Amino acid sequence: MNINGKAYRTIWLGADGWSVEIIDQTRLPHEFVVATLRTLEDTGRAIKTMQVRGAPLIGATAAYGVCLALRTDASDDALERAIRYLAAQRPTAVNLRWALEEVRAAVRNLPREARVAAAYARAAEISEQDIETNRQIGVNGVALIEAAARGKRPGEPVNILTHCNAGWLACVDRGTATAPIYEAHERGIALHVWVDETRPRNQGAALTAFELGGHGVPHTIIVDNAGGHLMQRGLVDLAIVGADRVASNGDAANKIGTYLKALAAHDTGVPFYVAFPHSTIDWTLDDGLAIPIEERSAAEVLVMTGRTSDGRVEPVEIAAPGSPARNDAFDVTPARLITGLITERGVCAASRDGLLSLYPERR
Amino acid sequence: MNINGKAYRTIWLGADGWSVEIIDQTRLPHEFVVATLRTLEDTGRAIKTMQVRGAPLIGATAAYGVCLALRTDASDDALERAIRYLAAQRPTAVNLRWALEEVRAAVRNLPREARVAAAYARAAEISEQDIETNRQIGVNGVALIEAAARGKRPGEPVNILTHCNAGWLACVDRGTATAPIYEAHERGIALHVWVDETRPRNQGAALTAFELGGHGVPHTIIVDNAGGHLMQRGLVDLAIVGADRVASNGDAANKIGTYLKALAAHDTGVPFYVAFPHSTIDWTLDDGLAIPIEERSAAEVLVMTGRTSDGRVEPVEIAAPGSPARNDAFDVTPARLITGLITERGVCAASRDGLLSLYPERR
Repeated sequence: MNINGKAYRTIWLGADGWSVEIIDQTRLPHEFVVATLRTLEDTGRAIKTMQVRGAPLIGATAAYGVCLALRTDASDDALERAIRYLAAQRPTAVNLRWALEEVRAAVRNLPREARVAAAYARAAEISEQDIETNRQIGVNGVALIEAAARGKRPGEPVNILTHCNAGWLACVDRGTATAPIYEAHERGIALHVWVDETRPRNQGAALTAFELGGHGVPHTIIVDNAGGHLMQRGLVDLAIVGADRVASNGDAANKIGTYLKALAAHDTGVPFYVAFPHSTIDWTLDDGLAIPIEERSAAEVLVMTGRTSDGRVEPVEIAAPGSPARNDAFDVTPARLITGLITERGVCAASRDGLLSLYPERR
Repeated sequence: MNINGKAYRTIWLGADGWSVEIIDQTRLPHEFVVATLRTLEDTGRAIKTMQVRGAPLIGATAAYGVCLALRTDASDDALERAIRYLAAQRPTAVNLRWALEEVRAAVRNLPREARVAAAYARAAEISEQDIETNRQIGVNGVALIEAAARGKRPGEPVNILTHCNAGWLACVDRGTATAPIYEAHERGIALHVWVDETRPRNQGAALTAFELGGHGVPHTIIVDNAGGHLMQRGLVDLAIVGADRVASNGDAANKIGTYLKALAAHDTGVPFYVAFPHSTIDWTLDDGLAIPIEERSAAEVLVMTGRTSDGRVEPVEIAAPGSPARNDAFDVTPARLITGLITERGVCAASRDGLLSLYPERR
């Protein structure tokens, strides 16, 4: 999508045709910096330090990491070493392992001299597939926004609430929860996005607001406490969030706080949608509450990073000194609170039957 | 309550017997500073700049402001000027006007030479009344904590969630939502408090955590997004919050985000209580959604103040530059989500009948 009028993806090949360029997301929103990855180690570091984040983008980056490794050494040994090394950088990321398998499958039966080109080709396909999947999520989800727009006076925007960043910065382009929003924006539908700041890591205020602003989508940052009040007062037409994992019954694990917004939407009659690609569905789980919830560092709650009045980007301690904190990263929204699921195949009820209607091959 | 083993109130007379000492709450939690008020203007500034905050404490401080004014000039004119000046510092604060009226009534029919002593006596009574009211809220509310404790194994704490700061720092002592907590702590009941950080002003992480920590009450700071998840996982036994205004039907306006926690409590079967003194009840309103909601500065959302690694306390910008923010200060929790109301008269259902059972004189 655009950043101040110029189209970007989160990852692309450099002008030399082989180095890999990324937006360094650790510097956002205060600085826009492009980083160049030239080695396997550059790539591993980018994944580990979260210069790239978001499951689809991590996968795409890892695929290019194998390409960079094979440029130096295209042997079987080097291939396996690169895959092991990259997989270890974010041990729980499902897309990371999937992308590495894909590149391995694409090159392992080829002679060494053909491997680099084949790896780059597969890595490029992974990126394009991500964009195409998200484009389909957008096309399927935009109907919901169009329906809301029909209830509006001319020029009156559809108000959409989102939580965290399931945006293009988490993918190669377009995003998942944001895909219907960008699709609607491109179709000229007046809209306005309420951006939950999404404590503790502030992905909403930092990343979602940055990407919507850069692309020219009207939006307003709110604290995570505010969404229920806005829904109660009729200021939200629908909510769209992403998901980290969806159980086969339609329960959705997503960034902590999603459950609270779903409760408020249910209480106030606001439609609440969860958007994700098929790879997010865990067909082995029939109860979302069985999804393990990562507990992260208390420092994410107690320390906040921002820009000082003289332009330095600094961490500051914000809480009573000595007080402990707890930091659960995700929560589970029960399917009964979800109006519908938006995937690249269509929109369905948040239930096993709903998901099977889109993915009949899973019956 | 205690700060590191030493008992404090939020306001007290200095050793000279006439100056007024306060804890400068603009410096908390990073610095503990006692400020001395010697003039009417010192008092007005303390109220306006929120060195003192919380309705009961603002009232008590204003009462002493009149005392300080009368020491310089005990005339009728000076009395009225002082009252007008102090009332203008926080125009919407109900307790501020009430306290000023109380002191006026105590002195206006007295000869000048008797006015200063009478004003100090009434100001002291206002402080003592606040403490006694809160003590009664604590005694009435502690039964709910004791009931929860009976379901625990020996030594296993009762987990209580609270939002914002309805603590002793908002009052003269003991607090409202915290009064049952301090009462339980004094009775030796094992407890642990989940402290919502309460964005955007962070009164939970900054003030509630500071006061619980100072008094030795076990607690953990969580982001506002986390409470629903903790309730879902059985980690919260009851929630107690304060209120800014309660309608006669039991709907409660309180800090933004309270509604979301009440929804989660209702969804998960966690008892949810609102604690407040009778002065918080607005008998003229029979629908909480009619309570006007203050919209505050966007800067409170976009800028956060904290302590840098080298010890300076600095504001930092935390959001995408140029993104707008909206900042509603309160929300309304419908009575149907509230398990009970705790006042100085007892515990009642969140309903008109419930409130009238405690305040039959309002029939």
